[in-house]
Amino acid sequence: MKKTDKYAAIHYHDYLQLDAILSSQIPRSGLYENAAHEETLFIIIHQVYELWFKQILHEVGSVMNMFDKDHVDEKNIGIAVARIERVNEIMKLLIQQIQVLETMTPLDFLEFRNFLFPASGFQSFQFRKLEILLGLKIQQRFSYQSRPYYHEFDAKQQEEIQSMEQAKSLFDQIVQWLERTPFLQFDHFHFDVAYREAILKMIEAEKQAIIDSDYLDDDAKQARLVMIGVNGEYFGTVLDPIKHQERLDAGEIRISYKSMMAAILIHLYRDAPILQLPYRLLESITTMDELFTTWRYRHAQMVMRMLGKKTGTGGSSGFDYLMETVKRHQIFKDFQHVSTLLIPRSYLPVLPEKLQQELGFYYSFKS
Amino acid sequence: MKKTDKYAAIHYHDYLQLDAILSSQIPRSGLYENAAHEETLFIIIHQVYELWFKQILHEVGSVMNMFDKDHVDEKNIGIAVARIERVNEIMKLLIQQIQVLETMTPLDFLEFRNFLFPASGFQSFQFRKLEILLGLKIQQRFSYQSRPYYHEFDAKQQEEIQSMEQAKSLFDQIVQWLERTPFLQFDHFHFDVAYREAILKMIEAEKQAIIDSDYLDDDAKQARLVMIGVNGEYFGTVLDPIKHQERLDAGEIRISYKSMMAAILIHLYRDAPILQLPYRLLESITTMDELFTTWRYRHAQMVMRMLGKKTGTGGSSGFDYLMETVKRHQIFKDFQHVSTLLIPRSYLPVLPEKLQQELGFYYSFKS
Amino acid sequence: MKKTDKYAAIHYHDYLQLDAILSSQIPRSGLYENAAHEETLFIIIHQVYELWFKQILHEVGSVMNMFDKDHVDEKNIGIAVARIERVNEIMKLLIQQIQVLETMTPLDFLEFRNFLFPASGFQSFQFRKLEILLGLKIQQRFSYQSRPYYHEFDAKQQEEIQSMEQAKSLFDQIVQWLERTPFLQFDHFHFDVAYREAILKMIEAEKQAIIDSDYLDDDAKQARLVMIGVNGEYFGTVLDPIKHQERLDAGEIRISYKSMMAAILIHLYRDAPILQLPYRLLESITTMDELFTTWRYRHAQMVMRMLGKKTGTGGSSGFDYLMETVKRHQIFKDFQHVSTLLIPRSYLPVLPEKLQQELGFYYSFKS
Amino acid sequence: MKKTDKYAAIHYHDYLQLDAILSSQIPRSGLYENAAHEETLFIIIHQVYELWFKQILHEVGSVMNMFDKDHVDEKNIGIAVARIERVNEIMKLLIQQIQVLETMTPLDFLEFRNFLFPASGFQSFQFRKLEILLGLKIQQRFSYQSRPYYHEFDAKQQEEIQSMEQAKSLFDQIVQWLERTPFLQFDHFHFDVAYREAILKMIEAEKQAIIDSDYLDDDAKQARLVMIGVNGEYFGTVLDPIKHQERLDAGEIRISYKSMMAAILIHLYRDAPILQLPYRLLESITTMDELFTTWRYRHAQMVMRMLGKKTGTGGSSGFDYLMETVKRHQIFKDFQHVSTLLIPRSYLPVLPEKLQQELGFYYSFKS
Repeated sequence: MKKTDKYAAIHYHDYLQLDAILSSQIPRSGLYENAAHEETLFIIIHQVYELWFKQILHEVGSVMNMFDKDHVDEKNIGIAVARIERVNEIMKLLIQQIQVLETMTPLDFLEFRNFLFPASGFQSFQFRKLEILLGLKIQQRFSYQSRPYYHEFDAKQQEEIQSMEQAKSLFDQIVQWLERTPFLQFDHFHFDVAYREAILKMIEAEKQAIIDSDYLDDDAKQARLVMIGVNGEYFGTVLDPIKHQERLDAGEIRISYKSMMAAILIHLYRDAPILQLPYRLLESITTMDELFTTWRYRHAQMVMRMLGKKTGTGGSSGFDYLMETVKRHQIFKDFQHVSTLLIPRSYLPVLPEKLQQELGFYYSFKS
Repeated sequence: MKKTDKYAAIHYHDYLQLDAILSSQIPRSGLYENAAHEETLFIIIHQVYELWFKQILHEVGSVMNMFDKDHVDEKNIGIAVARIERVNEIMKLLIQQIQVLETMTPLDFLEFRNFLFPASGFQSFQFRKLEILLGLKIQQRFSYQSRPYYHEFDAKQQEEIQSMEQAKSLFDQIVQWLERTPFLQFDHFHFDVAYREAILKMIEAEKQAIIDSDYLDDDAKQARLVMIGVNGEYFGTVLDPIKHQERLDAGEIRISYKSMMAAILIHLYRDAPILQLPYRLLESITTMDELFTTWRYRHAQMVMRMLGKKTGTGGSSGFDYLMETVKRHQIFKDFQHVSTLLIPRSYLPVLPEKLQQELGFYYSFKS
Repeated sequence: MKKTDKYAAIHYHDYLQLDAILSSQIPRSGLYENAAHEETLFIIIHQVYELWFKQILHEVGSVMNMFDKDHVDEKNIGIAVARIERVNEIMKLLIQQIQVLETMTPLDFLEFRNFLFPASGFQSFQFRKLEILLGLKIQQRFSYQSRPYYHEFDAKQQEEIQSMEQAKSLFDQIVQWLERTPFLQFDHFHFDVAYREAILKMIEAEKQAIIDSDYLDDDAKQARLVMIGVNGEYFGTVLDPIKHQERLDAGEIRISYKSMMAAILIHLYRDAPILQLPYRLLESITTMDELFTTWRYRHAQMVMRMLGKKTGTGGSSGFDYLMETVKRHQIFKDFQHVSTLLIPRSYLPVLPEKLQQELGFYYSFKS
Repeated sequence: MKKTDKYAAIHYHDYLQLDAILSSQIPRSGLYENAAHEETLFIIIHQVYELWFKQILHEVGSVMNMFDKDHVDEKNIGIAVARIERVNEIMKLLIQQIQVLETMTPLDFLEFRNFLFPASGFQSFQFRKLEILLGLKIQQRFSYQSRPYYHEFDAKQQEEIQSMEQAKSLFDQIVQWLERTPFLQFDHFHFDVAYREAILKMIEAEKQAIIDSDYLDDDAKQARLVMIGVNGEYFGTVLDPIKHQERLDAGEIRISYKSMMAAILIHLYRDAPILQLPYRLLESITTMDELFTTWRYRHAQMVMRMLGKKTGTGGSSGFDYLMETVKRHQIFKDFQHVSTLLIPRSYLPVLPEKLQQELGFYYSFKS
């Protein structure tokens, strides 16, 4: 086709394919008698959700393309952050959207819900696709009525699902990207060793400060020393590669020890130029995970209000199932827990000068 | 068709017509070369807007059906309020949605905007339909480049527009519903007369309180007496049927004197049983009008950020035009102004006992 | 004091007591060395929460005053609804406010959290007061470290707490208000009898429709008949006064059978004039309960992000405790469940004409 | 004081100074008779606004400290962005807060507004301070009743205002920081020359594409060529240092030509490592400016609803004044307009290889 096709005039109506979009609302309650007024909202709100799922898949897919390499182009980190932040703006919209569906009352829903069986969100292919691409593992899934989730879909879609289940997820890509962090070891400086030493110093200093305090009585001192002790043990357990492996094997965590140390480094030295956007990437991904679980929670709440303890349109047991997924279907939980492994800046290991240069801009080095 | 068709099983994918919905995103920038990543968002966000416009038209249309009568069924006032409140929840979502579009930067928009000409929101038929149905009069419209707004549409749509322009709008229906309020005159009680007397009493009392004050110096007293005087004149002008007619003829206001007095009555005695939901109806409609203008404002702001002083995809001059409509395309302004005609409860005319009964529940009367 | 004191001029700064308000931010980290930049946000955001708690207590207290009677003035139902709706607007703000606190990172929190011990939200007296006034029963509370919640407060506050624990809560008042509903029995019409009959009719009709369906195979019919059967049993259990009493005694529910039937009546005939605002009252209270639990959920999420599995400033175990209260500290759950006891409008018992009159306006009766 | 003071136990109540905070709500309407219920909300909502203003001043002040240097530490750009983004989260909260104040009706406001005179937002010292620090110039201010804004404050505050008016604002600091951008000229590469050439190339290419188009008729081609011509002239005017100076002298713009070229460079090459956070800084500041004007707009809307065309508590003329400030009190408008000076990526001047290195990380250079 000639290059000038794109310049041909196009009307808004055709650009947005509004003939198709605006004729796709067919209330089931209207098949034989007057359509229930409320069914239109039910249809439209779910179509809007599916359009936004498509958009989110578009963004997440593009970020996964950038990270599907042994070396991510440094120009792309900023773009990846912007796209995840966009997904987060969309997620906030999807959460607020539930307030619109809540304007439909249980009494109104009764007018047409019997005619929707067994359609329900369980049959949303895009939603399952998104879960898999982000990194929800099938073993992690809370099974509903012992029925594998993919049975809701046709053969072609089930094939696609199998394929995605076996491919790398965004979670895998981020872990591998973290593992490639070159700053964990530099000349004789080993970050994990230096970090463990810094923690020991911190624990000692905190203990001493409590013991020296003129403002705490003995009971209070005791209680706080116990807390510090517990904290120290916690660090000891988590920052031990062998114990980490045990927890990995037991399925308690998913990330490798190396990627966890990289995540800690990025958090601690996040103001160093070369780490500023990697830090924002980890933050925006953790926020995205939290927004998804908030959406799950609000969805469960709405189902409770609409159906109570009864079954939903897909025969689901409603509230209990959805509340379970709030907890279980979190994906980037290990990244969230990095927050428990940080220490105050005053105790941070000082990085060797040459390493600080490595973390800086070429321009600064030159100057 | 047999009655049991509605019970046939239906899959979520078919119920929501997802084949059509999810295949309607055709980026223009992709016609010849790689589609610009950002064009997908542009398309999807406008399709989502159009789906919500359809929903809003569905709700507003149903309310207009209820009010297209000489007597509105008292059961329907509550339903009408609920539906307008739903429209308001949707409007809040549409306003927040602009934050999602703002994640697209001007530099990214430049990648594909040349291929969209002349498509733009000016060509949204549903949006124009909504403006007309709510009550935007053609004389009131801010003309863009002296080009009548309906020229953007084909012959069939222009016919539909003509038809709607001539039919009663929601604004007209509400005014006529207000005019039918039976409580403005009851036996020897004339609300407008009683109200004007109450206002005079209030003005006098306020003046006396200022004069008697030990805590204001003469200058302060003078300033405040002037303000009260101005206020008194204002009431005198607005609550005068002859001056009201002059303002109506001059096009400064749209509602009749009778409907204005009814709106005042409803605001003042809104806790009387029979007025509680009519009050909520006026409030929710005024809020709807405000939410529309807030959306116009945020839309103008976004266009300024995206295009600055340049022209948009429809050749529009962007910001200035849209900011003008924020002011000019407000529809229920006269109802908003009722707030200036209220007086403190302590000065309210006491309604005759028989009239109070008229405003109450049958059950209370019986007891 | 003379009546004109109120007219004395007052400056914004003094009206809002800004000297006090704006000098109340004393960072602990600043006592000896440079204050941590982030501690100001931590202080201010909690002060803002406490100001809003005061406002919520003001609104809830005023509603409880209205309902602390054997007969609630019908003018007050509308006002009560407006005030609960205001509380809900505030709750939405408090939920969004968490996003502001989330701009503080765990690394930044580490700069000053050691100096806050043992201050924490556990010591918010207004928050506990609000829980008790709304209706959270002490037996229902999830105990933290077997430590009664009131031990955080001084003797005077503990007395106030005891007093409130023994007084009627809003929950109690609403239940008693529902029990006073006069429309459950009218001449020979008994609503609960008529309702149970209507349900039986509905169950039979649904079964027959499934059996007659040409579009379901035998397995599908079987599955759906089972579901309908389960539903029928559910209704049978819940709408049985004796079984209801058993569940009350076992602490599974809190409301009386009579108040539950009243709530069902109000939901089903909510468009009847005299029930329109009682319906809105039940809805706004249920929404308020949901907003509180959403706030608890978001708060738990933020604590997880900030502290992970470590203990918080009050020595709390953070996330797990707070997530438990999301489920356990819901107060108006029984009202939420009324949604499971509704039936489609087409099956509703027709109310006797005289009863319909009782539910209407005096004005309509007269006409 | 000994170092261990900070470890002394502190109760939540004392940490937050709740004795002071929670006893600062004194309704004027309560001085002589029963306080109007609604006045508590009015007081508390303004106290909350003032607490957030303090927080915003804390963040903006800290950013201004970072930029009050001839060379901003590169570690601080990321921190500055995070703090401005926090201000933006707070602004969104302040905008939503207006919905809470809108739950107070005009009729309720009438119960106490006469007793507040002349207190009003005009007397908020923190708000004026924020305007000045951000960069609102006194000549730019829309004068209210020809009364200089600072007359609302006492002598000490007026002195502070004078001082701030004469000192550098954040706007000035950002402009100077932009002027220090070292990348506008590099060896023989002059960015502004290269950019103007690129624009000319783009204009020519666009014209040719239109002329060559098979899909536009002559009228359409003509119209579009005119638009492109207008666009070309626009670039010519704006990217001309002499014309820029004329506009500066006429007060049409505020930023220098050099800072404008730097802003354009940062936008165009924002994915280059050393420009990624400067880009985010410009974006977050522009967003902050937009959020302030949105707040002004919503505030004006609320005043219209509450007071209509009458005067407010400070004797202000309400709506018209506030709407004027929406337009006039925008501060970073020139940065917003940079969007009109961008061109599609495909036309961007290719930067010399050595310059690309300058924009990169030391680590990448080394590899």
